[in-house]
Amino acid sequence: MSGVTTGDLVLPDVRTRIADLAEYVAIPSVSLDSDPAAMRAAAQWVADRLTFAGSYLDETAGNPVVRAHWDGAPGAPTILVYGHYDVQPAGPADEWRTPPFELAVDGDVLRGRGVTDDKGPLFIVLEVARLFMEQEGRLPLNVKFLIEGEEEIGSPHLDEYVRSHVDDLACDLVISADGAMWRPTEPSVSVASKGLAELNVLVEGAATDLHSGRFGGTVANPIAALASLLASLHDRDGRVAVDGFYRGVRALTDQRRAEIAAVDFDDEAYRVQLGAPALAGEAGLSTLERLWERPTLEINGVQAGGQYTVIPHRAAAHLTCRLVHQQDPAAVTKAITEHLLKRAPVGVTVTVEPAHGVPAYAVDDDHPSIVAAEAALARVYPGQTVLHAVIAGTLPATWLFEDALGVKTLFFSFSTSDENLHAPNEFLRLHRIPEGIRAWEVLWRQLAGTLAGTLAGTVERRQS
Amino acid sequence: MSGVTTGDLVLPDVRTRIADLAEYVAIPSVSLDSDPAAMRAAAQWVADRLTFAGSYLDETAGNPVVRAHWDGAPGAPTILVYGHYDVQPAGPADEWRTPPFELAVDGDVLRGRGVTDDKGPLFIVLEVARLFMEQEGRLPLNVKFLIEGEEEIGSPHLDEYVRSHVDDLACDLVISADGAMWRPTEPSVSVASKGLAELNVLVEGAATDLHSGRFGGTVANPIAALASLLASLHDRDGRVAVDGFYRGVRALTDQRRAEIAAVDFDDEAYRVQLGAPALAGEAGLSTLERLWERPTLEINGVQAGGQYTVIPHRAAAHLTCRLVHQQDPAAVTKAITEHLLKRAPVGVTVTVEPAHGVPAYAVDDDHPSIVAAEAALARVYPGQTVLHAVIAGTLPATWLFEDALGVKTLFFSFSTSDENLHAPNEFLRLHRIPEGIRAWEVLWRQLAGTLAGTLAGTVERRQS
Repeated sequence: MSGVTTGDLVLPDVRTRIADLAEYVAIPSVSLDSDPAAMRAAAQWVADRLTFAGSYLDETAGNPVVRAHWDGAPGAPTILVYGHYDVQPAGPADEWRTPPFELAVDGDVLRGRGVTDDKGPLFIVLEVARLFMEQEGRLPLNVKFLIEGEEEIGSPHLDEYVRSHVDDLACDLVISADGAMWRPTEPSVSVASKGLAELNVLVEGAATDLHSGRFGGTVANPIAALASLLASLHDRDGRVAVDGFYRGVRALTDQRRAEIAAVDFDDEAYRVQLGAPALAGEAGLSTLERLWERPTLEINGVQAGGQYTVIPHRAAAHLTCRLVHQQDPAAVTKAITEHLLKRAPVGVTVTVEPAHGVPAYAVDDDHPSIVAAEAALARVYPGQTVLHAVIAGTLPATWLFEDALGVKTLFFSFSTSDENLHAPNEFLRLHRIPEGIRAWEVLWRQLAGTLAGTLAGTVERRQS
Repeated sequence: MSGVTTGDLVLPDVRTRIADLAEYVAIPSVSLDSDPAAMRAAAQWVADRLTFAGSYLDETAGNPVVRAHWDGAPGAPTILVYGHYDVQPAGPADEWRTPPFELAVDGDVLRGRGVTDDKGPLFIVLEVARLFMEQEGRLPLNVKFLIEGEEEIGSPHLDEYVRSHVDDLACDLVISADGAMWRPTEPSVSVASKGLAELNVLVEGAATDLHSGRFGGTVANPIAALASLLASLHDRDGRVAVDGFYRGVRALTDQRRAEIAAVDFDDEAYRVQLGAPALAGEAGLSTLERLWERPTLEINGVQAGGQYTVIPHRAAAHLTCRLVHQQDPAAVTKAITEHLLKRAPVGVTVTVEPAHGVPAYAVDDDHPSIVAAEAALARVYPGQTVLHAVIAGTLPATWLFEDALGVKTLFFSFSTSDENLHAPNEFLRLHRIPEGIRAWEVLWRQLAGTLAGTLAGTVERRQS
């Protein structure tokens, strides 16, 4: 149990640290533009703060990753901190109230591109490491860093990098400084994210578009055929009507329903926020139950014909499913494919092409990382219930770390999902910085004692 | 009964007349490009051949129309010859076997842009008029000409022109030199064309596209809603499932079924020609019955979302119906609108916007124009049955002439629908020229005797 101490770090006044963060925000490390000098400057800025851990830039086929490893706690568990130094493009300049690459302090918020995604949240981790080294000369546990520069463009080289550095990156837990708390009104910890199954449907009729007069009534219309196929995917109660779709989905327990029912959530405010005429979805379930606990099948796009009086010769649709629990992306794709092919109308050819699959991700409520995160959040948000939230989106990195390194990922970001991520006027609540530093401190101290001998001993490493 | 003679015109060898037609084809009167010099040159070329009838160019807001009026048969009926001097763009130059604007004689066919649509068929009328004037010094009946220059771009100024020249254009029958015989294997006369009802459907959900993970399961998907609406438009037997859609549609008589069954039509050859996996349509009807006698509802296009994992905020569809018999375009549009609005799923707003309507057109089998056309075709195609075909497309001009001038339109073109209209290598069968001249001669001679006292006396002029 080396590295555990009960003494708290002394935190500096956050306002004295803003200049340092401002320097980081000022580097326009927009991965979509990929200006090599800017990308490398941002990576170097991070590496410069991790020299105590032997930091270096490691090349990939794209932007370099920042790597570091502090291994001064023999016998203690090892965590891997994940984050990214790249940011989204600034977008329309005239919508920003202050220049995007000049960090502005505006009352209780900091404003600038990347300040909440992910420069501010990563800065919090760099600060906690710096303070530990300054005040205690060591960290409570062994810490590796993997900070990439392509998260905002879909991490095209992360998979290859991780899989070819499995031994270097070996750890007992990944902690992501990326992510966001669900909303500002209470602390939350993410216990699951949804998986993804993606497919393309193509319906083909005649060899070319046909004049709807000269040929109407003699051939099938591919759009009508596609519409009947798409309409067959859900029943009248909003459930997915594909045999086998729900295989692996656990029934909602009374306990989970009670937990979700206890969350203060205003359907009408949410509806107004989205601008929808009404909320909709599976009958018999609340909005949050549908969002967090249930898989979905969405039609994302249809391309077919145009404004002219033709019978188009093809109609294509793009579908994605968000998966939960033990649903298998490949099995879901297969079930949908069979459903569609079986219903192909006369006069058209139906082709279904699976495109992409990621399993759902979940960590048990009593996993040491969740217990430690709750303790850390309880310390900085005393008296508040910590929500067990679900990231209803898909986080391929969690699957990558589980598949390649055999470990769970804890999302521990002090960003909040309402802080204009990817939009103009991105901001970070100033108070999240000291809260985050204290929380990471408590998290590390606790994990140093609880993580060792649990994950380290039992996790089977799947090196594929 | 003035103007009727039993003597036949002496026809020149068609090959001696090709140079004249070649001059006309050489003028690149592409209305889509609208080079004013080329358009005017083509119009003038036509007008130059109608000087005996006092021809002149009359201005419109677009390309000029060619007008002429030979009124030297007092007491005889008056016909209005309709045609167009504009052509489609040549399209891909490398697909033409000979230059599009140089008339080529290739064995039994003439090749060049516009040679069958509509320069060759109009040339036939100019020839018959020329030969009558040369050999008999007069025409058998009074003839007006209205040759427009914007047919290939949808005749945007024809409606206004006709309605503001109702007295000038008064006649007992319109004969169109535009159109096409159904196929080369037998002569045919068109007794009907289908009407059109057109509408746009818009389904709207949330105010913006939403992330299908972060919001999936909480709001309706506009594409799924649109698919269910579109799928509800037909029943399992391929019939339109909209209440009131078939109002005004006459039952198929045994006689008409027998007529159609007697037509030599090869379903399999037709299927192969279209490249469709199978033919399809209303159960219990033959392909030609569906094509000629039944109204249709086609989905022409859908615009919604794309390839990304979003829940799109809108989905739009464009629909057109082809109408028959007494179906009222406005009533059909209303019935479909009500059908869709009644079925709007929860969570979306459905808007239906009618766009365009043209009633179906028909002329009775025993109308003097049909009887005369059959006699004319029997003369040049002896021993062959003249098919009563339906133009399954929509011809707004027929409705215009009926509505504004109160007269029927006879389609009497010697183009054939397989002659690459609107495509590269447009051609006209050479033998159609002398056949056409003879047929027009017989048609005019017969109408001079049968049309007078029928249409002239009974038609009610609806001037709107």
